[in-house]
Amino acid sequence: MSLFISLEGGEGAGKTTQINRLAAYLTDEGYKVVTTREPGGTKEAESIRNLLVQREGGDWDAMAEVLLLYAARVMHINKVIRPALAEGKVVICDRFSDSTMAYQGYGRGLDKEKIKEIERISVDGFKPDLTLILDIDVTEGLERSNKRLSGQKGYEKTEDRFERMELEFHERLRQGFLQIAREDAGRCSVIDATQSVDDMTAEIQSLVREKLKA
Amino acid sequence: MSLFISLEGGEGAGKTTQINRLAAYLTDEGYKVVTTREPGGTKEAESIRNLLVQREGGDWDAMAEVLLLYAARVMHINKVIRPALAEGKVVICDRFSDSTMAYQGYGRGLDKEKIKEIERISVDGFKPDLTLILDIDVTEGLERSNKRLSGQKGYEKTEDRFERMELEFHERLRQGFLQIAREDAGRCSVIDATQSVDDMTAEIQSLVREKLKA
Repeated sequence: MSLFISLEGGEGAGKTTQINRLAAYLTDEGYKVVTTREPGGTKEAESIRNLLVQREGGDWDAMAEVLLLYAARVMHINKVIRPALAEGKVVICDRFSDSTMAYQGYGRGLDKEKIKEIERISVDGFKPDLTLILDIDVTEGLERSNKRLSGQKGYEKTEDRFERMELEFHERLRQGFLQIAREDAGRCSVIDATQSVDDMTAEIQSLVREKLKA
Repeated sequence: MSLFISLEGGEGAGKTTQINRLAAYLTDEGYKVVTTREPGGTKEAESIRNLLVQREGGDWDAMAEVLLLYAARVMHINKVIRPALAEGKVVICDRFSDSTMAYQGYGRGLDKEKIKEIERISVDGFKPDLTLILDIDVTEGLERSNKRLSGQKGYEKTEDRFERMELEFHERLRQGFLQIAREDAGRCSVIDATQSVDDMTAEIQSLVREKLKA
């Protein structure tokens, strides 16, 4: 049976590892699995991702970001996600609409009702069947993320002032994701990302098996 | 006094000539004039324009196009148009929101109410003070436009089948612009673009003078 799973969460929560493990597990169990990401997943959506992430790309208003993210999402849903689900596949997506609500709504402070209206108009409220929110203390998550990034070429430790703003921003993100999970408890499960990687994997597999049986 | 003027219309109606003449006229009359265009007008919005116009850019759904166009419009309004109007300038824009309604709504057949809702949510219904719709018979307009383009490097005459589809599309555009003008007659004036260039210029100057006095 088809299932659309999204993984959400802040920096350093270990999304990538868990997505790879979940895809391998489901493939072993005989499911056809598609892994994808947002913003992105199609040529058009990846070009929008490039606009948003490039350093010299511009200084986007939060509303413009939401419109760009939904333009990318429309393409991703119509070209990749819906066709895969129609073929009975399991789609695992690294971030989806909850990230828009968390980053632009809770993080940047854009009117959350406006984001919901754009979701309703543009994608008819299309949502994952199951959303796994990997939750971790902000300082611990950023430390893990910095440790990983510091091994990469060109990485520089951010300045203190920027770091403090970053901390506050990521705290709003974390609380946003937790609020989203409370408001849509039937779809969202919060996973404690301070437990061991193997324990997280086991918890995620159990939640996905349950959903596949439903 | 500040005034926001948009020029709209199909291919070959002579928008560019009239924009240049209007800008020169108003500058001579002592107004501070800003000329700009859509999609575009800021670095961010021009990068969205590039996504939409490049041949290899992708196959955008009409809804994704509307979201991209409004993302560009948010930036254009906030960074260019509103600041210029606040300084008492006259802003002359080559295409604005009516083009989105005409192309994606009337042309591509997207639900017009959805376009209006996105306009309301993203830019709070922000509209020009005066919109001049340059109207011309579709075949005549495309002939003028082809004559102009055929002098350009790399131009190839389109195939017959594509041309027939083009004609039907441009006829829907034309009727769309005329319908928009009927629905918002206080803001929109339809200019007959089959009259001489000088007569058009005189009619436009008269309409703009009237609006500046109001």
